[in-house]
This record gives sequence, structure tokens and C-alpha cells, in this order.
Amino acid sequence: MSSLRYVVAVDVGGTETKAALVNGGPGAATVLAERRRPTPRLDDGAATAAAVVDSVIDLAAELGDLAEGPVEALGVVVPGVVDEERGVGVLSANLGWRDVPFHRLLAERTALPVAFGHDVRAGGLAELRLGAARGSTDAVFLPIGTGIAAALIMGGRVQSGGGYAGEIGHVDIGHGEPCGCGQRGCLERVASSAAVARRYAARTGRRVRGAVDVAEAVRAGDPDAVLVWDEAVDALARALLLTSTLLGPEIVVLGGGLALAGDLLTAPLGRRLTDLISFQRRPELRLAELGDAAGCLGAALLAVDLLEAR
Amino acid sequence: MSSLRYVVAVDVGGTETKAALVNGGPGAATVLAERRRPTPRLDDGAATAAAVVDSVIDLAAELGDLAEGPVEALGVVVPGVVDEERGVGVLSANLGWRDVPFHRLLAERTALPVAFGHDVRAGGLAELRLGAARGSTDAVFLPIGTGIAAALIMGGRVQSGGGYAGEIGHVDIGHGEPCGCGQRGCLERVASSAAVARRYAARTGRRVRGAVDVAEAVRAGDPDAVLVWDEAVDALARALLLTSTLLGPEIVVLGGGLALAGDLLTAPLGRRLTDLISFQRRPELRLAELGDAAGCLGAALLAVDLLEAR
Repeated sequence: MSSLRYVVAVDVGGTETKAALVNGGPGAATVLAERRRPTPRLDDGAATAAAVVDSVIDLAAELGDLAEGPVEALGVVVPGVVDEERGVGVLSANLGWRDVPFHRLLAERTALPVAFGHDVRAGGLAELRLGAARGSTDAVFLPIGTGIAAALIMGGRVQSGGGYAGEIGHVDIGHGEPCGCGQRGCLERVASSAAVARRYAARTGRRVRGAVDVAEAVRAGDPDAVLVWDEAVDALARALLLTSTLLGPEIVVLGGGLALAGDLLTAPLGRRLTDLISFQRRPELRLAELGDAAGCLGAALLAVDLLEAR
Repeated sequence: MSSLRYVVAVDVGGTETKAALVNGGPGAATVLAERRRPTPRLDDGAATAAAVVDSVIDLAAELGDLAEGPVEALGVVVPGVVDEERGVGVLSANLGWRDVPFHRLLAERTALPVAFGHDVRAGGLAELRLGAARGSTDAVFLPIGTGIAAALIMGGRVQSGGGYAGEIGHVDIGHGEPCGCGQRGCLERVASSAAVARRYAARTGRRVRGAVDVAEAVRAGDPDAVLVWDEAVDALARALLLTSTLLGPEIVVLGGGLALAGDLLTAPLGRRLTDLISFQRRPELRLAELGDAAGCLGAALLAVDLLEAR
């Protein structure tokens, strides 16, 4: 018999919460059932956090009822600055909370052991064990969505830096524009999928649904789209150069909305990075394999790891 | 009785090789005897590497004779790009070698088990176990000497990135001047102790022995020295901001020649970093505790770790 276990995994996103009943082991995770719900948003961060806890507990109960055996653990990941060791959501600019003891709040509401983590690092763990970074010990998972953050894999482990590692969206790549974080020149102001859509719309006056529309316009030869896209690619290449200089990853896994453009992103980004690289190791660029399920699968792996460590 | 063992440790520097007979354990290292010699330099890198191996073997024999018990292992660290896993000195721009299989070359010449590593990462290991980063899991050791490289401690371990991690001396901090590495704007062009001395001499026409002289001139209120020093401090603060954004260390240990200036470096650097920091974790700045013995002590720890792992 396999040593796979039933766990419930929940990925609390900025707009949507994804939950899954997973049959998993340390290097395997099969989704048996899925649920998606809007992430609750209330007037203040503490109330939002409490509603998120309610929602996670509901989803766990609902999915747990579908399992053909006992569910053994609950894995939950949230965005922002997350201190895994203390089990605290330190800060979510988007959802408005500060210093929420999620691990304790969840453990008070369920008899299951609770693994608590960070959405992007959990996604990196999933790509490392099950996806595009399999077999690597030094890699970076870079989901490019509304914002840009990275999961840093060094020495075969996803490193958290006490919750502060991986904020590559806020490295200064020199464009000088102010960012909501209080700094200037931040990568995500020109290279997030939201920024690409926003900058194209501002330039042309055209409405776009997102970066996917801009990518389509690039393919059609629209010069405004090409310009915005090239600026994003150049900024990403500069940020990857910095990352290579400091960390020396062998693989960079590109994910999130912008990576849906596939070759349109990886081909020029690879060329630009090759131009910039000097003595550094040139990382191989790969597209993420797990799509938007990465965070949820990572939450399942965290839950399995918790059980295995017992 | 203690479980301390005798090991010989050798730190091959760009100009000087330091060797020591050490009585050590995983968290202890006492230097019983020391030897220093100029690092051999021949016409080509391969010949230099062969002469370095000869020199290391000589030093090991000489120091081994002084031990009051059997020497159990040899630890050797070298500069440049070092692949610890394969035991290869991949590249030393300074000493001119490429792809030298040091581990094999040394093991062929001694009956002792050989631990082979990187000088800066070994120094970081020593500061982590015995020095200023004790008790930390996420820290950066930043020796500022002729060049600038960092040892990255994440998750309680010194991370190597396949030998490529920590090249912070070559992050672009925006001054635009060309660097020997082929890039522009590199940190070490304005902030290494060699750069501080060179830039002050170029500005004033005065001869200086090194950054220590410039520090003295800063203390005396020399405006040229103040300007050069401030530029170095500003560049270091920008590089530490990047490091904090990407890695989130809780401690930065400053070492090397420039850190001999003590408060004159840490006080303005701390202020400038506080100005620049936004949402990132502000690392505590500490002065290195092990001075120029860090690399050699780290080599001893690598030798002890090799024995402990058996």
C-alpha cells in the first residue's frame, strides 16, 4: 500500500481562495476535489483575517467530508510577509492585516494538525518537488502576476529569511517611477502583469483585460504593445541579473499571468539576460508547470511534511 | 575527555597563504600554531595552482609535526568561484586559474581526508559558529577588502549556489563606472578598501597605504576623504538594501580591511540603510569578530565537519 495521506490544502489569494482535498506524500500530490471562493474582505485587516479563518475552516470541513479515509492535516498558505516559524501573517498590504497569529487561530478551530505558510514559497516548494524545478538544489520560482515575488530555493530548500526573503518585485531596476512601497524604480512597477496592462492602456487609451491582451497585441505587431513588453522584459532581465549575481541559481521558473505568454516572454528574456550576464552563472529559464495550482499543492506538501516530521 | 580533534587548516589568499594547526570541534576551534607564506604566483594559472598544492602540502606536514596527537584532516579554502561539491576551483581572476580539481590534487598528496571550500564562505561559517553571527539562521558575512564578496547564510547554513552565490561586489549600484568584470556600476569599484584608497589617491594626488589612511583622513576632517568615504558608504547601503529585499537577513557582519574603521563605517552605513529601507527587514550591522583568521578557522570547521559526517 502507498503511504499517501489525505490532507486539505488552502491557498488564500488576494482575490480568490483555492482549496483542495489532496492525496499526497512528500513527493506526490493528487487533487481529488477542489473548491474556489472569493477571499473575504472586510473593513479592517483583523476582521478580514477572522473571516478568512472562518472560510478556511468551512472549506476544510466541506472537503474533508469527501475523503474516503480520515483527513490527517490542514495546510494553509497566505500572501504578504509570512513568518512560518511563528505561524504569523506579519503583513498583507493587499488584505490589510498585520501580525495575525493564523496558526493559533486555525488550530483553535480544528482538531487537525495545521501547517501554515507563504503562498509564493509554497508554490516554489510545489514546483521544486512536483514541477519545473524538480531535481534542482538552487532555483528561483518567479510568479509574475498582480505583483512580483520570488521563492528562493537554496541548498535544496525553500528559504524564508524569517519571512522577508524574495521581495524581488521591489528591487530598484532604475526606471525612477515611484512605487506604492515607498521606493522608486521597483521591478513590479513595469514588469508585473498588472503593470504591463496598465502601462499599455495608459499609452494607447485602449481598455485591456490584462497582460494577455497586451501579449496578443505584441504578436500582432502593435508598436505600443511591443514597447511596453520590451520594457518589462528588460526590467525582468536586470532583476534576474541581480539575482544571479547574489544567488547563482541554475534554474529560474517563470510563473503567474505574464508567463502564460510562453515563448513571447522566455525567448526575449533569455536573449536579454545572455547579453547582460558576465561571469555569473546563466540560469536556465523554464515555464512553471503547475499553473495557479502551485500554491495549493505547496500547502498540501507543507501539511504532508508536518505529518512526516512527527 | 573532549571530542576535539587536530586538523590542519589552510586559507589560500590572493597574496598570502595562512595555515594553522587547530584543535577543533563543530562549534570550537583553537589555533595552536600558525604559519604565513606568500601565495605562489607563476606565469600561468595551472602552474600557480600546482605550486599552491605543493605549498599547502608542505604547510600541512610542517604544522602536523607540531601536534601532540594525530592530525585527522586537512581543510583548504581558496578564493574565486569555487564548486565545493565537485571540489573544483572554477575560476580565480586574481590567481589566474580555471577548473582546477583541487580536492583530487590534494587528496593524491596526503593520506588525510581533505575538506575543500571557498575562502569567503568558510569565513562566513566561522563567523556563524564562532563569531559575530552566532545564533543567527539568516545572515550575511561581508568582508570588504581588495574585492567584495559575501557569504550568504540562509536557514542556518552557508549557501553556495553551486559556487556562484554571494558576488555582491558586482551588483550594479548605479555609478556607471566600468569594472574589470565587464559590467558597469559594480559595488566594488567604489566601496572596496582598494577602491577607497585608489579613489582618494586619484582625487588628491596623495599616496596612501590603504583605506586605513583614508579613514584617518576622514577622522581629521579632510573633505576629499569625507567625499570618497561617503560615496563608499552610500554604495554599500544600496547593496545592502538589495540584499535585504532579496534575502531578508537579520544580521550583516562587516569584515575585511574597510571594517577595521569600526564606527566610522558602521554608524553612517546604518543611518543610510535606515533611510533607504522601506518594508524590508532592517538588518543589524555588526563588526566581524574573527578578523583575518576567519577563513582559516572556517577551513578548520570544514575539516571537522567532514570527520563528523563519517
